[in-house]
Amino acid sequence: MADLMEKIVSLSKRRGFIYPSSEIYGGFSSCYDFGPLGVEMKNNIKKAWWDEMTKKHNDIVGLDASILMSPKVWKASGHLTAGFADELVECRKCHHRFRKDFIKEKCPDCGGSLTKPKKFNLMMKTFVGPVEDEASVTYLRAETCQGIYTNFKNVIQAMRLKIPFGIAQIGKAFRNEINPKDFIYRTREFEQMEMQWFCEPKKADKFFDFWLKQRLNWYYNLGIDKKNLRTYEVPKKELAHYAKRANDIEYKFPFGWEEIEGIHNRGDWDLSNHSKHSGEDLKYEDYFPHIIETSVGVDRSLFAFLCDSYTEVKGGRTKTTKAAKEIEVFLKLDKNLAPVKAAVLPLVKNKPELVKKAKQVYQMLKPHFMTQYDEVGSIGRRYRRQDEIGTIACVTIDFDSLKKNDVTIRDRDTMKQERVKIKDLVECLRKQL
Amino acid sequence: MADLMEKIVSLSKRRGFIYPSSEIYGGFSSCYDFGPLGVEMKNNIKKAWWDEMTKKHNDIVGLDASILMSPKVWKASGHLTAGFADELVECRKCHHRFRKDFIKEKCPDCGGSLTKPKKFNLMMKTFVGPVEDEASVTYLRAETCQGIYTNFKNVIQAMRLKIPFGIAQIGKAFRNEINPKDFIYRTREFEQMEMQWFCEPKKADKFFDFWLKQRLNWYYNLGIDKKNLRTYEVPKKELAHYAKRANDIEYKFPFGWEEIEGIHNRGDWDLSNHSKHSGEDLKYEDYFPHIIETSVGVDRSLFAFLCDSYTEVKGGRTKTTKAAKEIEVFLKLDKNLAPVKAAVLPLVKNKPELVKKAKQVYQMLKPHFMTQYDEVGSIGRRYRRQDEIGTIACVTIDFDSLKKNDVTIRDRDTMKQERVKIKDLVECLRKQL
Repeated sequence: MADLMEKIVSLSKRRGFIYPSSEIYGGFSSCYDFGPLGVEMKNNIKKAWWDEMTKKHNDIVGLDASILMSPKVWKASGHLTAGFADELVECRKCHHRFRKDFIKEKCPDCGGSLTKPKKFNLMMKTFVGPVEDEASVTYLRAETCQGIYTNFKNVIQAMRLKIPFGIAQIGKAFRNEINPKDFIYRTREFEQMEMQWFCEPKKADKFFDFWLKQRLNWYYNLGIDKKNLRTYEVPKKELAHYAKRANDIEYKFPFGWEEIEGIHNRGDWDLSNHSKHSGEDLKYEDYFPHIIETSVGVDRSLFAFLCDSYTEVKGGRTKTTKAAKEIEVFLKLDKNLAPVKAAVLPLVKNKPELVKKAKQVYQMLKPHFMTQYDEVGSIGRRYRRQDEIGTIACVTIDFDSLKKNDVTIRDRDTMKQERVKIKDLVECLRKQL
Repeated sequence: MADLMEKIVSLSKRRGFIYPSSEIYGGFSSCYDFGPLGVEMKNNIKKAWWDEMTKKHNDIVGLDASILMSPKVWKASGHLTAGFADELVECRKCHHRFRKDFIKEKCPDCGGSLTKPKKFNLMMKTFVGPVEDEASVTYLRAETCQGIYTNFKNVIQAMRLKIPFGIAQIGKAFRNEINPKDFIYRTREFEQMEMQWFCEPKKADKFFDFWLKQRLNWYYNLGIDKKNLRTYEVPKKELAHYAKRANDIEYKFPFGWEEIEGIHNRGDWDLSNHSKHSGEDLKYEDYFPHIIETSVGVDRSLFAFLCDSYTEVKGGRTKTTKAAKEIEVFLKLDKNLAPVKAAVLPLVKNKPELVKKAKQVYQMLKPHFMTQYDEVGSIGRRYRRQDEIGTIACVTIDFDSLKKNDVTIRDRDTMKQERVKIKDLVECLRKQL
């Protein structure tokens, strides 16, 4: 589907997954807001990752560090120096800046002449405290992991950890990207899910392979099509300043194969540099542990799950004559990721007894599962509306329901319907979900 | 307890709840990091609030807007003008700024003379895009709710909502507080849980009372002692620029009664101003809905829950001779908020069969509940260690366990022990938790 990108953007807006930030003011700087369904799906992704890391695996604990940190952290990490910068040219006339590989000899904005390329730092600056001068400058974190390294000793002590162990964290990070693009793929504000695994130096290679495999399986288990996922071994000369080895997990987006997660061997770069700059000894016993990092872009992975689950059925899923010319859309989202788990639908809305019963069922399900109630339009139309957002189970209340106190449950993927007693419904859905 | 504050800060650090940010660099600007137990507890609080809002109540949907927004938003909201500023004096010599009510005639830093008070804006500035000039300036959001207002129409359309309805959001906000203080109580980076309830103007007063009561009950249901919570009707002349009426929910902290949540009647301030400034019609049918806002400080409420649950028992909880002179601490946290739900403890660590069985039980529980394994020190010492972090259930494997395939479950609050078959353990804990 060549126009998949457009379709995803449109569905995201229309159905409440993703909106441009500050849209009523014409949008803002590649920032995006997650709507009612987007935030549920994002929370589901984060929970799936958090549970995988902190509950499934042994010896991984969580952390939630602040976005604002001491600028000394960024000096030690190498982010304030040449290691974390883009090469830009500046127009001598209008002073706009451009990536040198994107332009030729003149300023595309005013035609002025351009300077030689110089490094431009990607960190976003802010001022803390009442005096807006150099002393109060700091930066929005450009990666969440630094908060893990600065708390390395704190966490070991409080949790009585022994190497190997991991620290997991989810949070926002910011980079002043010159060229944000591709919807929520490359943005200046983004969310990361990072796990830092501290181990003996000689075991780093083994754990690199272990975590790469674990991370691939996580996507497979959440339903990503294997043929849309691949790994890419980053060549030595393209490695980030902190990395000894890096493998990208790439997803086949409508705009090509792009990274959604990085597995990095950061060696002892972080702990040894923070030791040097802070004066605190961050050794474990008598050595600096090496770090294997797994770093997911939350927005990127959500985008990949959306693309991967987007399915069109020409002629309608039910193959009725009426639907013969229609294209029906459904999101084959994993049951853990789908934003809405169940929808309660009275067969028709002009029978008060049906509506009353349906609302009772809705109230019953709501505390247990993210549930929608919908009575507007034909039942077929409502099924399609739920398919389009990936709702797992449609619970329909029909005339028989009034007599038998039961409902039908329609499965999103098979469209099979099953009658279930209302008293057994919560338990039945719990099993299914 | 006069020194409760010190005890909470110390326990928070020692047991992995809360650390000063960038601590190895001497800390930074009243920023704090949540450690392994802090992040679990914070996530539990957020989940309890999110479920209350989006699952228990009807007609409330979620949202997750970006931290960076168009500066036009902040112009329309009144935050860039006089409405959101502190009065500061500046030292003519060192240019440091101070709240005028905190100092006398000379600069406390260098003794220089001071200017007359002037307004200083509390928003944190940053620069977006490669050119660091006025055109690229924006601000870190000072309140999360603006993202809700700018998406008002988007959300109505996608979710087919009818008034009254609510939009709930959890996220970080930033204010350049002149005087951050009291541990995590007043910080420059903080997290909010806000719900904006849109209703007919004539029903606003009724909903104000409704939501105030709902919000108080939320704290009561999570175990906050009623005598430590009160409401405060903010006098008309002290209202924020957007508010028609405000009630603070205050908690009795060690440093006095302070706000942890605000219930505000914002009238039509937000929607009418955004309509005016953006040119988009944000009316519902033919009127601007009025907004009742419930705004919780996540960090503040976590702090309140910690203070409220902190309990000292002189002479030891078990009243043994050995403990007679000791003070034992336990956190009486609600079972939904406690960061660790279960601890698995082999009676002794030098019997391989016991340790093996205990580790099996640990592996069994871990996927279901946040569980710790601890074999270090006497069993009494380990109980106390778990009490101190509020663990609900201690699961002990003793010699009988080897024969009978059962364990004892010790309840945190009653210290009563109950024997349960290992095969029934997950189900049994699930009921208890």
